[in-house]
Amino acid sequence: MISNPVIDAMMKRASLRAYRDEMPSDEVIETVARAGQQAPFAFQCCSMILKRSGKHPWGAPINFIICADTHRMRLIAEKRGKEIRMNDLTLLLFAMQDAAYMAQNMVIAAESLGMGSCYIGSAPFQARKLIESCQLPKGVFPLVMLVMGYPAEEKPPRPRYPLRFSLFEDVYPELSDADIDEAMQRMDEGYLAQDYYRGNNNRIRLEEGEDTVPDGEYSWTEHISRKMQWEPDQASMLSKLRACGFDLGDVEAGDTSPRE
Amino acid sequence: MISNPVIDAMMKRASLRAYRDEMPSDEVIETVARAGQQAPFAFQCCSMILKRSGKHPWGAPINFIICADTHRMRLIAEKRGKEIRMNDLTLLLFAMQDAAYMAQNMVIAAESLGMGSCYIGSAPFQARKLIESCQLPKGVFPLVMLVMGYPAEEKPPRPRYPLRFSLFEDVYPELSDADIDEAMQRMDEGYLAQDYYRGNNNRIRLEEGEDTVPDGEYSWTEHISRKMQWEPDQASMLSKLRACGFDLGDVEAGDTSPRE
Repeated sequence: MISNPVIDAMMKRASLRAYRDEMPSDEVIETVARAGQQAPFAFQCCSMILKRSGKHPWGAPINFIICADTHRMRLIAEKRGKEIRMNDLTLLLFAMQDAAYMAQNMVIAAESLGMGSCYIGSAPFQARKLIESCQLPKGVFPLVMLVMGYPAEEKPPRPRYPLRFSLFEDVYPELSDADIDEAMQRMDEGYLAQDYYRGNNNRIRLEEGEDTVPDGEYSWTEHISRKMQWEPDQASMLSKLRACGFDLGDVEAGDTSPRE
Repeated sequence: MISNPVIDAMMKRASLRAYRDEMPSDEVIETVARAGQQAPFAFQCCSMILKRSGKHPWGAPINFIICADTHRMRLIAEKRGKEIRMNDLTLLLFAMQDAAYMAQNMVIAAESLGMGSCYIGSAPFQARKLIESCQLPKGVFPLVMLVMGYPAEEKPPRPRYPLRFSLFEDVYPELSDADIDEAMQRMDEGYLAQDYYRGNNNRIRLEEGEDTVPDGEYSWTEHISRKMQWEPDQASMLSKLRACGFDLGDVEAGDTSPRE
């Protein structure tokens, strides 16, 4: 493993959940945003809504709402005498990548400027609220939020799967029981050693049945398996995407979810 | 705008389309992949298929197929006595982010190691071929390809929208004609000054009508508006996602597209 300032910024980073009460300067914010903009991909179908005022999670001074944004593309195509004919699903696949590549540059840029950050994945669930509060035009989908600021705590980097469980050559291998056990063990022991879930007090309560997992054994794979019980209903997300102007298919049933 | 080695790596980068015939060492590849893995997000629902052998675009020595990958999550949840109940669309929205954040770390890591890279956005269109050639299990969606290697040319960074066209505060503003014109001008003049499309010989031919735009005026907004005419049929991408194990909705019509 090679080390340099860029690699180190990525390897030492952990999502930050405690912020000092200090507003980053305009120049710092602009630097982060410009580094984000410079990320590669095709269409620049992404934008950022910056929130300075108001309360943000964990006392962060700023929050970026990172959007997959086809609105400006539509305006530009119109000026060229064209409509967007690409279907909404394909367009969204590209615009989401534009937005995510931008966001990750912002994360690393923030790190290099002495700040920390944390993605908040619930933005899509809050799409309707965000359309209203941020006056999002059609074609703009809030993909993720990114809170940012100066750290009030230092956290170690979090464990990851063994590399050979994530990097394959030529073909996707058949994963053996031993491979899966090794990956689970790496993650579970790593998180338990950091006392991560008790420390952050974010154990997910079971919706049914008795919870027999003691705190000292509540680990990454248990946590993530519980998250995978959320949101069985697809209609709700389809409906939110439609509210943002992306029509991916029939929206049959309701449109509320416990995650909103 | 603040400068440091990390910010510089992002700001100076351009997608690379000419590679030297030199294979990166195992240590370099491993460093890039580990930096990718360390990217934040929730689920580690992402994996990389590395291709060293074979020919890759622009003579690149290696190609990573970056996948949104829920297969291992399913195996792990099973070991925890659980199924994935989250709907496929929501799951895909999260897994795509995992994959994209990882990929962008890899891009920046490569830059810091003296390499260049280029995303190839057509991976989703080739999903069926990749399922077969890479033996992708259900729940693995090839999001993007990333070719990488040592540069055989140096390219300037590409233009971006004016920052105030991409970074908004509190609310998404009404964009005026002047705002749109300014953004178009910035992009078009920037690309034309670099002779980008003629240099890369990648003008998109019109599918109907006479093409009256001279080479010297064929610019970013023209190019991107033409791309937006591709793939009007949503069923094709829905069907590819279904082949990967993500069922987003009714697949009605055919399943071929000119982009495959």
